[in-house]
Amino acid sequence: MPGHLSASQITPHRDRYIHELLTFCRQRSISSTGEGMTAMSQMVIERLQRLGARTSVYTVGQSYPFIFAEIGHGPRTLLLYNHYDVQPARREDGWQHDPFEPEIRDGRVYARGVADNKANLLFRIQSIEAYLKAHGELPLRVCFLIEGEEEIGSPHIERFVQQHRELIAADGCIWEVGRRGFDNRPLIYLGMRGILMVELSLMAAANEIHSSWANIVENPANALLDRLRAVLDTLSDSAGRPTFGGLLDELPQPSATDLELIERIPFDLATFQVERDVLLRADVSDPRDALRRLFFEPTCNLCGLSVGHGALGIKTVVPNRAVAKLDLRLPLGLTPDLVEARLRTHLHTHGFDDVHVQRLGALQPARTNPDAEIVRVTSAAVQTVYGVEPIIYPTMPASGPMYELCHAQGIPALTFGAGHAGDNVHAANENIYLDDYFQALQAFGDLLWRFGQS
Amino acid sequence: MPGHLSASQITPHRDRYIHELLTFCRQRSISSTGEGMTAMSQMVIERLQRLGARTSVYTVGQSYPFIFAEIGHGPRTLLLYNHYDVQPARREDGWQHDPFEPEIRDGRVYARGVADNKANLLFRIQSIEAYLKAHGELPLRVCFLIEGEEEIGSPHIERFVQQHRELIAADGCIWEVGRRGFDNRPLIYLGMRGILMVELSLMAAANEIHSSWANIVENPANALLDRLRAVLDTLSDSAGRPTFGGLLDELPQPSATDLELIERIPFDLATFQVERDVLLRADVSDPRDALRRLFFEPTCNLCGLSVGHGALGIKTVVPNRAVAKLDLRLPLGLTPDLVEARLRTHLHTHGFDDVHVQRLGALQPARTNPDAEIVRVTSAAVQTVYGVEPIIYPTMPASGPMYELCHAQGIPALTFGAGHAGDNVHAANENIYLDDYFQALQAFGDLLWRFGQS
Repeated sequence: MPGHLSASQITPHRDRYIHELLTFCRQRSISSTGEGMTAMSQMVIERLQRLGARTSVYTVGQSYPFIFAEIGHGPRTLLLYNHYDVQPARREDGWQHDPFEPEIRDGRVYARGVADNKANLLFRIQSIEAYLKAHGELPLRVCFLIEGEEEIGSPHIERFVQQHRELIAADGCIWEVGRRGFDNRPLIYLGMRGILMVELSLMAAANEIHSSWANIVENPANALLDRLRAVLDTLSDSAGRPTFGGLLDELPQPSATDLELIERIPFDLATFQVERDVLLRADVSDPRDALRRLFFEPTCNLCGLSVGHGALGIKTVVPNRAVAKLDLRLPLGLTPDLVEARLRTHLHTHGFDDVHVQRLGALQPARTNPDAEIVRVTSAAVQTVYGVEPIIYPTMPASGPMYELCHAQGIPALTFGAGHAGDNVHAANENIYLDDYFQALQAFGDLLWRFGQS
Repeated sequence: MPGHLSASQITPHRDRYIHELLTFCRQRSISSTGEGMTAMSQMVIERLQRLGARTSVYTVGQSYPFIFAEIGHGPRTLLLYNHYDVQPARREDGWQHDPFEPEIRDGRVYARGVADNKANLLFRIQSIEAYLKAHGELPLRVCFLIEGEEEIGSPHIERFVQQHRELIAADGCIWEVGRRGFDNRPLIYLGMRGILMVELSLMAAANEIHSSWANIVENPANALLDRLRAVLDTLSDSAGRPTFGGLLDELPQPSATDLELIERIPFDLATFQVERDVLLRADVSDPRDALRRLFFEPTCNLCGLSVGHGALGIKTVVPNRAVAKLDLRLPLGLTPDLVEARLRTHLHTHGFDDVHVQRLGALQPARTNPDAEIVRVTSAAVQTVYGVEPIIYPTMPASGPMYELCHAQGIPALTFGAGHAGDNVHAANENIYLDDYFQALQAFGDLLWRFGQS
């Protein structure tokens, strides 16, 4: 008979669950290079089949496999979004050991992909397994959608959803990530900002030329840089916000509920600055104001600029091209299409027709209503297992395909997972605490029971 | 009995020789990625063994195989330097067809690596074979040294030479490249400029940070760029020459012979500018002066500059690092060690201790005396087969490991090969003329005979 999942119902499986997690982390699955992707997708499919789930696999164009799985019955359906790919990692980036040879030290597992997002993927499977062993059956229907392209911007998920809308129909979705904050309370993010990634480029000549000619050929690097910076200077203000196309004038104001959520979020700017070792903007001093900007304002961030060869190593040429890469984070109210159109108009109006604009990727902003059932149920599960209320963020400042997968279909979504504030996602020495792992696993079982009852 | 090699002694083998060339070009051998390198080295070894040469293979540290081969007897030894690796190539870079599916059109073979340097490698083998079929024996001893790392800067050749000096002892060396000039006369280069490749980098913070924080974290891109350009502005003059460390004051003047060689070189600046589609430096108007600079002056060329992610695609961070990549071409009189030491002193003296300097590679300048026997012999062979005198360049403006392999051992070296002025080496639609191929093959046979007699 369905019910809660207790710690004692998990303990007997603890060693095996850890072993499975290490095995998942040992398998490389780097979507940007393709390394290990087939083996990893097979490993995930086999684990889901051992759970007893019905699995199917889809591809869209040249995509890596989308894995779909379903298990359980009931009037309610819970959708779980995860991904089996990871960011690249090389030991020389600052790792204390081979990033694909997991190590356990001081209660933490260190490995590439452990926090993002193999732990979250696996504890959900294991929680369902423990639940079935404890209670015999699930109190609801659970669907997994597990892609292999999250780390490269989920380029095929929108088309996948368009082609398989019926598969992912659900009453709520738990997103792939999730962590505890700096004060140790679990966080729930109710959405994500959108993103538009564009490349602006300028040419000085049709061809690069071998640098042995540099004595007689003019090097246009400085001229290209001056021109590109003149363009960039018109695009953003000193707060890092886009100033083109009147975008700031059209932003919706945060609602009263949004401002109330901000009030409840502990955020200390000095701690943040010291821990991340970054320089805060001069006008950032109030933590509430910082959060308001992070959730409800857009950015126009120069994430890369290059003239000639900007990659590793060297290419001995007189360069002919300058490139700026911008990522614009978009709060609710701004869409990538609108922002790109305004950007193109702006460049034309300002006489920058020599700038070539290329879109590198885009995702819509997404928001879930704080009153949604899935929010209430997840909060209650956290309260029960962690003994504290979760902190609810109106949105994550970062981006992901949450709108494309969930909100475009009317599915409320939120984040819940086993990470923590120092989990070093995407960076060296990525890690999770094993205590977090098993607490999240237990809370997830509680969530299953509660969502089945609701 | 040894003698000249006539066209009629080559014609019977013509179709097979072309077939072999296409087979060589079809085999990828990209040293920067490793693709096809083992297969290509095997193909070269097998071809040398079919010729009847004694082959041996060496590695130095993590190098690709160095192939050594010898054939023939006599008081004279001729060393041939070639490489079996090629530059990367993708169809989308502007190729009219798959760069590794050779095509013959209008008397030319188009393929990656055909000019640089698979044709030169193969016609030397085939010329020896035709010579043996025509005359039964070679008039001298010929040694091949064929490496697989020329396209990545020959990082192991100096150590190879130090470990195997006895292997490469010779009376003269024919270098891997070679071409006809714009006026169709074959060129002989008597040397190469040296090169020092360095990376200068500046940090703004210890870590990059995820760009979702850009609302509150200062983006240091502009500050880093300003600082890096302030550094770069002190390093070179408007003629693209290094201005630090008094290097220009110490340059030896070109000799009377050098200036005489320059007088005989046809070089039209307007044609060059139109054909390459580049902008000449404002003070370049006299072709003699242009050649003097290219042969006898150094460069300090900014070949790459980046802040944040400068490679393909996008990495959504607030960047923390700026990098400039410089390549300095060095005429005789300047060594990489001297230039690097002066650069470091200059940065320190000017208060740029925040700039981190890293050497990315280096080669010494190399020069062969115009009176060397190998020069006389090669000129005579060209005159005999092409019916014109070659044009002798005191040096190639570009760089290669000629000093490390030859001049450090007292071996005079020069270039002679089957390329032409529009062969698009390193670029899209690389090609050679088949007529050049067979003319070079015949002239090489003549050169063997003459060098054996000398």
